[in-house]
Amino acid sequence: MLTMQDALARLSEYWARQGCLTVQPMNTEVGAGTWNSATFLRSLGPEPWRVAYVEPSVRPDDSRYGNNPNRLQTHTQFQVVLKPEPGNAQELYLDSLTALGIDVAAHDVRFVEDNWTSPALGMWGLGWEVWLDGLEITQFTYFQQAGGLPLDESAVEITYGVERIVMALQGVTDFKDIEYAPGVRYGEMIGQAEYEMSRYYLDDADIAANRSLLELYSAEADRMLDLGLPVPAHTYLLKCSHAFNVLDARGAVSTADRAAEFGRMRRLSRRIAELWISRRDELGHPLGLAPAVPPAQPAPAVQTEQSASRLLVLEVGCEELPPGEALHAAEGLGKEVRSRLDATRLAHGAVQVLATPRRLIVLVDEVAPREEDFTRSVKGPKVAAAFDAAGEPTGAVKGFARSQGVDVAGLGRMDIDGVTYVAVTREVQGRSALEVLAEVTGAAVATLRSAKNMRWNDPALTFSRPIRWLTALWGSDVVPTVASGLAAGRDTRLHRTAEQSVVAVATAEEYLSVLAAGGIVADPAERRRTIVAECVRLAAEAGGRIDVERESRLIDQITFLVEQPVALLGTFAERYLELPSAVLTTVMRKHQRYLPVLDADGQQLPFFITVANGDIDVDLVRAGNERVLRARYEDAAFFYRADLALPLPEMRDRLEKLTFTEELGSMGDRARRVGTLGVRLAEQVELTAEQRKDLEQAAALVKFDQGSQLVTELTSLAGVMAEDYARHGGASPAVATAVGEAEMPRASGAALPGSTIGALLSVADRLDLIVGLAATAGLPTGSSDPFAVRRAVLGALSVLRQHPTLAVLDLRAALALAADQQPVGVRPGLLDEVLEFFVRRYEQTLAEAGTPADLARAVAVRADRPWLADQTLKQLTAAVEDESFQQLAAAIGRCSRIVPAGHPSDYDPAALVEPVELRLHEVFTEVRSELGRGADLAEFRRVTGDLVPVVNAFFDEVFVMAEDPAVRAARLGLLASIRDLGTTVLDWSQLRG
Amino acid sequence: MLTMQDALARLSEYWARQGCLTVQPMNTEVGAGTWNSATFLRSLGPEPWRVAYVEPSVRPDDSRYGNNPNRLQTHTQFQVVLKPEPGNAQELYLDSLTALGIDVAAHDVRFVEDNWTSPALGMWGLGWEVWLDGLEITQFTYFQQAGGLPLDESAVEITYGVERIVMALQGVTDFKDIEYAPGVRYGEMIGQAEYEMSRYYLDDADIAANRSLLELYSAEADRMLDLGLPVPAHTYLLKCSHAFNVLDARGAVSTADRAAEFGRMRRLSRRIAELWISRRDELGHPLGLAPAVPPAQPAPAVQTEQSASRLLVLEVGCEELPPGEALHAAEGLGKEVRSRLDATRLAHGAVQVLATPRRLIVLVDEVAPREEDFTRSVKGPKVAAAFDAAGEPTGAVKGFARSQGVDVAGLGRMDIDGVTYVAVTREVQGRSALEVLAEVTGAAVATLRSAKNMRWNDPALTFSRPIRWLTALWGSDVVPTVASGLAAGRDTRLHRTAEQSVVAVATAEEYLSVLAAGGIVADPAERRRTIVAECVRLAAEAGGRIDVERESRLIDQITFLVEQPVALLGTFAERYLELPSAVLTTVMRKHQRYLPVLDADGQQLPFFITVANGDIDVDLVRAGNERVLRARYEDAAFFYRADLALPLPEMRDRLEKLTFTEELGSMGDRARRVGTLGVRLAEQVELTAEQRKDLEQAAALVKFDQGSQLVTELTSLAGVMAEDYARHGGASPAVATAVGEAEMPRASGAALPGSTIGALLSVADRLDLIVGLAATAGLPTGSSDPFAVRRAVLGALSVLRQHPTLAVLDLRAALALAADQQPVGVRPGLLDEVLEFFVRRYEQTLAEAGTPADLARAVAVRADRPWLADQTLKQLTAAVEDESFQQLAAAIGRCSRIVPAGHPSDYDPAALVEPVELRLHEVFTEVRSELGRGADLAEFRRVTGDLVPVVNAFFDEVFVMAEDPAVRAARLGLLASIRDLGTTVLDWSQLRG
Repeated sequence: MLTMQDALARLSEYWARQGCLTVQPMNTEVGAGTWNSATFLRSLGPEPWRVAYVEPSVRPDDSRYGNNPNRLQTHTQFQVVLKPEPGNAQELYLDSLTALGIDVAAHDVRFVEDNWTSPALGMWGLGWEVWLDGLEITQFTYFQQAGGLPLDESAVEITYGVERIVMALQGVTDFKDIEYAPGVRYGEMIGQAEYEMSRYYLDDADIAANRSLLELYSAEADRMLDLGLPVPAHTYLLKCSHAFNVLDARGAVSTADRAAEFGRMRRLSRRIAELWISRRDELGHPLGLAPAVPPAQPAPAVQTEQSASRLLVLEVGCEELPPGEALHAAEGLGKEVRSRLDATRLAHGAVQVLATPRRLIVLVDEVAPREEDFTRSVKGPKVAAAFDAAGEPTGAVKGFARSQGVDVAGLGRMDIDGVTYVAVTREVQGRSALEVLAEVTGAAVATLRSAKNMRWNDPALTFSRPIRWLTALWGSDVVPTVASGLAAGRDTRLHRTAEQSVVAVATAEEYLSVLAAGGIVADPAERRRTIVAECVRLAAEAGGRIDVERESRLIDQITFLVEQPVALLGTFAERYLELPSAVLTTVMRKHQRYLPVLDADGQQLPFFITVANGDIDVDLVRAGNERVLRARYEDAAFFYRADLALPLPEMRDRLEKLTFTEELGSMGDRARRVGTLGVRLAEQVELTAEQRKDLEQAAALVKFDQGSQLVTELTSLAGVMAEDYARHGGASPAVATAVGEAEMPRASGAALPGSTIGALLSVADRLDLIVGLAATAGLPTGSSDPFAVRRAVLGALSVLRQHPTLAVLDLRAALALAADQQPVGVRPGLLDEVLEFFVRRYEQTLAEAGTPADLARAVAVRADRPWLADQTLKQLTAAVEDESFQQLAAAIGRCSRIVPAGHPSDYDPAALVEPVELRLHEVFTEVRSELGRGADLAEFRRVTGDLVPVVNAFFDEVFVMAEDPAVRAARLGLLASIRDLGTTVLDWSQLRG
Repeated sequence: MLTMQDALARLSEYWARQGCLTVQPMNTEVGAGTWNSATFLRSLGPEPWRVAYVEPSVRPDDSRYGNNPNRLQTHTQFQVVLKPEPGNAQELYLDSLTALGIDVAAHDVRFVEDNWTSPALGMWGLGWEVWLDGLEITQFTYFQQAGGLPLDESAVEITYGVERIVMALQGVTDFKDIEYAPGVRYGEMIGQAEYEMSRYYLDDADIAANRSLLELYSAEADRMLDLGLPVPAHTYLLKCSHAFNVLDARGAVSTADRAAEFGRMRRLSRRIAELWISRRDELGHPLGLAPAVPPAQPAPAVQTEQSASRLLVLEVGCEELPPGEALHAAEGLGKEVRSRLDATRLAHGAVQVLATPRRLIVLVDEVAPREEDFTRSVKGPKVAAAFDAAGEPTGAVKGFARSQGVDVAGLGRMDIDGVTYVAVTREVQGRSALEVLAEVTGAAVATLRSAKNMRWNDPALTFSRPIRWLTALWGSDVVPTVASGLAAGRDTRLHRTAEQSVVAVATAEEYLSVLAAGGIVADPAERRRTIVAECVRLAAEAGGRIDVERESRLIDQITFLVEQPVALLGTFAERYLELPSAVLTTVMRKHQRYLPVLDADGQQLPFFITVANGDIDVDLVRAGNERVLRARYEDAAFFYRADLALPLPEMRDRLEKLTFTEELGSMGDRARRVGTLGVRLAEQVELTAEQRKDLEQAAALVKFDQGSQLVTELTSLAGVMAEDYARHGGASPAVATAVGEAEMPRASGAALPGSTIGALLSVADRLDLIVGLAATAGLPTGSSDPFAVRRAVLGALSVLRQHPTLAVLDLRAALALAADQQPVGVRPGLLDEVLEFFVRRYEQTLAEAGTPADLARAVAVRADRPWLADQTLKQLTAAVEDESFQQLAAAIGRCSRIVPAGHPSDYDPAALVEPVELRLHEVFTEVRSELGRGADLAEFRRVTGDLVPVVNAFFDEVFVMAEDPAVRAARLGLLASIRDLGTTVLDWSQLRG
């Protein structure tokens, strides 16, 4: 059996053989090997660097007193950095697994998209989690930035999760059972430290002391930067980070604290990075410079076929592309090939596009061996101007001939619209297929871009993941394409673990069968069909079914996680079915990409289906996946049990310890505000006595599940767990539902609260957030919105638009109520700005839904009552073509236009003199008294039916701008009042014509 | 070439093969691998533990900006702990060197006594530095305590200095040139960090911040202990230690701080250790218990020789004994063997004792094969009482017979003084030699003890170092001795690296020749002769000589560092001769045990002689030793150059940054006080104007070399360097000498200042220390004297006794002057206590020098003027047998005895009435006026010559206790005055009869 210490020794030895320095862990606590100067600092600048080391990684948050079989406050990473990236890091990595004794062909080893970012280090990269039979064993990242600075040299980071790998290899399910060394179990070695450090991090660390440490460390880091010393500054940055993590694990970090501390660490990281780079420059780069990559040499252009049309295959071989991007990129590539080809004279047939995680394929049928030849004429001066009276060529024609590189004698003639011009005519020979295709495919590949691009060892191209090979064949000939530093050839690659992983393709026509023979299903549609069919079959075997429609997005994703799908049915212990279904499926879908298996009633069965890649050992891979799911469920069950053991009030009390923001108090304060606001808003809403009672109970609980361990762990379950825990805690179904619904919608477009009291709490939650943050941090501007105020505004709008019972709520008043609750002062005018922010978001939402801009703008003014605004919009949309509406709009428009901006809308009726204006006053007064505050457009039109003719009559008969100032003021006042009356339903001025 | 990373990998792999866990370095800064929980905590309690790890060891004090070729602020230790100690750790260690590719037979590998102690960890052990050709490459320690607690299980710690080993193996002389990995130099890797962290530690660390860190860490450690969590407490102890080290490197730790911080850390260590032990008990010792050591089985007692006397050899084989202890232990063993043998009836010849570092040898000539037989009689009742009238045996005689196990019939008769008794007489056969010798030698070995003893895997015995084998032969037979868990045999051991390191000895008579054949010179006198002869010869070869007398102690030491002396002549670069000679020889003698080679004038030549052990490769070992000395000199030269480059005032200014104690200010303050005090004391002393000027200059410089790097490094050079630097800095010879002499005496019995102004500064230095510390920390009590106040008192006394010019100084007044200078108040009465402390020390010194106790006590009262006291003692010693002195003493004694304690010594002469008392008053008054304050005994006797008869006449004629109270008071007052007059020269009451 491979012991854990042997595993570490073998990895060290393996990577030392690959030219890595083997160094020691950082001698201060770090959360991950990335923080070690051997990664963070060394990834910067132009010096080459290869290193491997063990890093005991301290994650106070992961403390479990040693009771959780899979989680440790200090776990062991094995860290490798290769800079510049060598071009075959994935293969080197797989060999390292072999060095550990892992049969990489029998296991399902996959590279699953996982982009990595460390805001505190200003560091990010693209890459993968590496899965071994569904178990994440390694993080594999191409660094792109560090300290917020782009990197001079590409670098790849490989981080092994050593305990996980060893547990899998030793077939044990608890870290304590790992054989660390012969006869010594890991639990015997480190159990006590796990317990005690967990106690420190979770329960006993002194918060004030750790805050002081954080400040002292940070000040030392700053001082060192001012003194030009990046190395000690970096050490203190690490200490800052650890102190922060301790505070976080103690629950002493508010959202605002978090943002501030991350900001501070990011700032330090950047200064450290800049200083490090300049210090290395000053020192003349003691480790030298990375050698330049030699340019690629294209294949010789030898076209064997001269007469027949042949198939073109272009395969762009990549490292595993993100599932969402492969097909899109292939389609883009196909379009580029087609359009560029169309711009040539090379005849060709249909263009087909295929894609797998590792390859973008463009197939072009019937590509001719050569471009057609053609004649090209260039028009010169008119003949009349080309020769003088003596028939001698003029300067103009001589110039033309010279510019075309011919003698005047060689010039021809061409007639255009009856005028004869001097002209040059040439026969142009078509280029060979290889020449054209090399150019076209090379240029097409060079256009590859994705939403999130990276650099690797090719300085010219950025793309989603590195391109590693190009296969380009026209019939039996290699197309001499060069792109991304690579020369195309006839080799394609099969599975990395295939006996022969690189295979020469004889002809383009054979290409797909070579892939197929290698087990690769190149066509995504075919892969998807296979996957669905297999999953359905396996589910049926287990006596269940898959909800194919519900799982559609997941199946799409899986289709681009594998090239050769092999579906497996796995089981898990029935006891886990006691966990809430949302927990089970969240873990399956989100973490494992497993499909849940349901019975006829839609209840979950203790099975799952996963889709492996390639010719693996099914039993081995199944067992591995089952172990992984068990571990995940064990984790969740651990939290769930712990949470259920806690009375609701105690869980609720934990909110007092979580700071929301420094100025806005604890999460407990916030929850109290939300509850109170919900109840106060409800005063304006029609509710039954039962509903009011339920609301009060729900208000007392709202947000309490933020105090649970499961939600701390799986934040997407906030609300879901609230409902579950509330029910278990004895709340009535209505109350439990409302507490859960208070968190809805969870994302843009996600489900909304169904019950009125849930909706009230949801709105209250959002208004509290919006007003509190507007008062303290300000409304979001630009792209910066750390507290997701925009999302809260959109959420509140969605809920209010959804619930007619809430139509009576006036946002202006509601915001004022929310402001009343805040522990901070709300400056005058702020609520107007907030309301304006709602108006703009509402308008934008309408525009995004396809509402014509003028209508959207016209009704947005009613965003203070979104349900009414929606009604008005519907009525308005129906009415705009209606003649009576147009007349009404015209009448109100006349009133608006004539009144100078700012004119007051009160007037002295006694100053009115003409009968028609007295009539207008009379009708207006009636209308105003009849019109309720919450009138929609239909009501407005009904009530104002009589007004239009009187307005028109007024304008026909009365000269508004009378000489007598009193008369003029009264007339303008009257018209202004009519204008303002209109504004209560919509902004008429926005209506087009 | 073995790279550094390969060396680490090989050591890991080697020790893993020996059953060690391989673990990671501590993830917080530690000064040494010992602090890692894998050593400190795991050495406690009964669980077995074997571990090996790399430990980057951070020593802020060793920061050199990367400029020193041999010193790094972070050096790399490789740490091994074996618990329980396996019995062959030295051999395992040598094999590990072989694993590194070191030919341990060709090199001179030695175990040189070096006991290790960490006051902060409450940890100590006995062991060695391991020298490779004079280079300390490893610390090898048998732990005895940790956290102040004795250890349940023996444990051995092996700490490799990796950089040093690798530098030696790679033949490079600067750490920067180490090949860390193929093509990567260590300097390229870590040079920048060395520079920057040095900057932090030496120049830029914020002192207030690090003080705060220290307090925060310490408080967290205490809190964790209160909560029962030793693991986080231990982590915080480490952080305390590092923060302390940072402050220390920044020169921000005063002597008092140091003591306080060490006290705090020691207290924490102890609590951590106690708590760890009890927690492991509670957890049921997860790693199990160490197996018990099986008892030794003695050899079968088969005595082949029955008639001839034979030689007895007893060899106790040890791990390398401290040079000072081997011979002493062997002699003790010989004495034990002899006295125990003498208590038997086994005839034997002379007992001889030999010793080497690894063996104690007792040889006993002509040991008989058996004890002599003898007759033993036991007396019973008188015959008269044994038989009744009928001749039947009485109860008494039956009882006697029964008790002796014989029939009454078997009883004999014996006559004693004419009375006949019943008796039992037996022939007792002598025991065999083997039986007797087994008992005698076993018991003798069991008595082995040394000044500092340790435990190893033998629970029964403690000794200076572990005993590993016993050889006991009587002629050709093995003596079946058992001791220290070992059974004696006929095997002895030669050099560990000999081809055959264990050799059977056929007969005791052959024993010495077996050793000799193995190259071992068992006789220390012979070894010493060989060493001296060889060293003298080699020195002569180099055209120089050895000062054999001067080096006598060193040669004694060398004699017990080797078993087979091989002297080598090495050279060093002449440029180092520019260093002060004291620096060169201190390094040679103290650090390297090298003998300096002098020319005819006693000047040093660029050579040294070292004595290696065993059959080594001379050139290889010479080269190694030369490299070591070069490195040491380079280090010293680095400091010396840096110091010389600093103007004296700047070096002096550095004292301001060194705290003396928190309350007594900086070293600068202290130096100023010493200077001022020296000048003020001089006011009472006769000096020339020239001397006064010199004194003032010297006073301005005194202690300035404490600001130098060399003295910081080699503290024993304080004063020596002051003189050198002062001279280089332009001071006159007298001034330079005085500044140097201010630090004298450096130890008890060491050289004293020669010049008067040097002596004045020396006294001032000591008085300042004594008064300052008495006023703040109190006078030392018991064995605790952290500031060496006792030594200062003894030093001041030595100087004052040495210099007649200083005889005028009155300590009481001098202490008052010193008190005047202190920045703290000196409470009333303290100076009396200090003076009393001087008196007691002076008295003790006299007693230790053999002065009769009564005389010592009598003159000690004059310790306020030590030179006078010495004079008085001389005179007193000469006078005690003198009749006139005895009469004087008797007269003063009569006065003392009659005056009640506490009676005042003033009186009204007018109250005196009798002529004889008036006469006494008159004579006394004359005597008093004639007697100066500084009178010695001779002077006192001269002046008081007339007093004795008058006193005697007074007592003859006058009744002191007159009825008239006024008369009585006057008479008593007069006598008290005479008593007190006597006390000014000595305490007459102490004189015996």
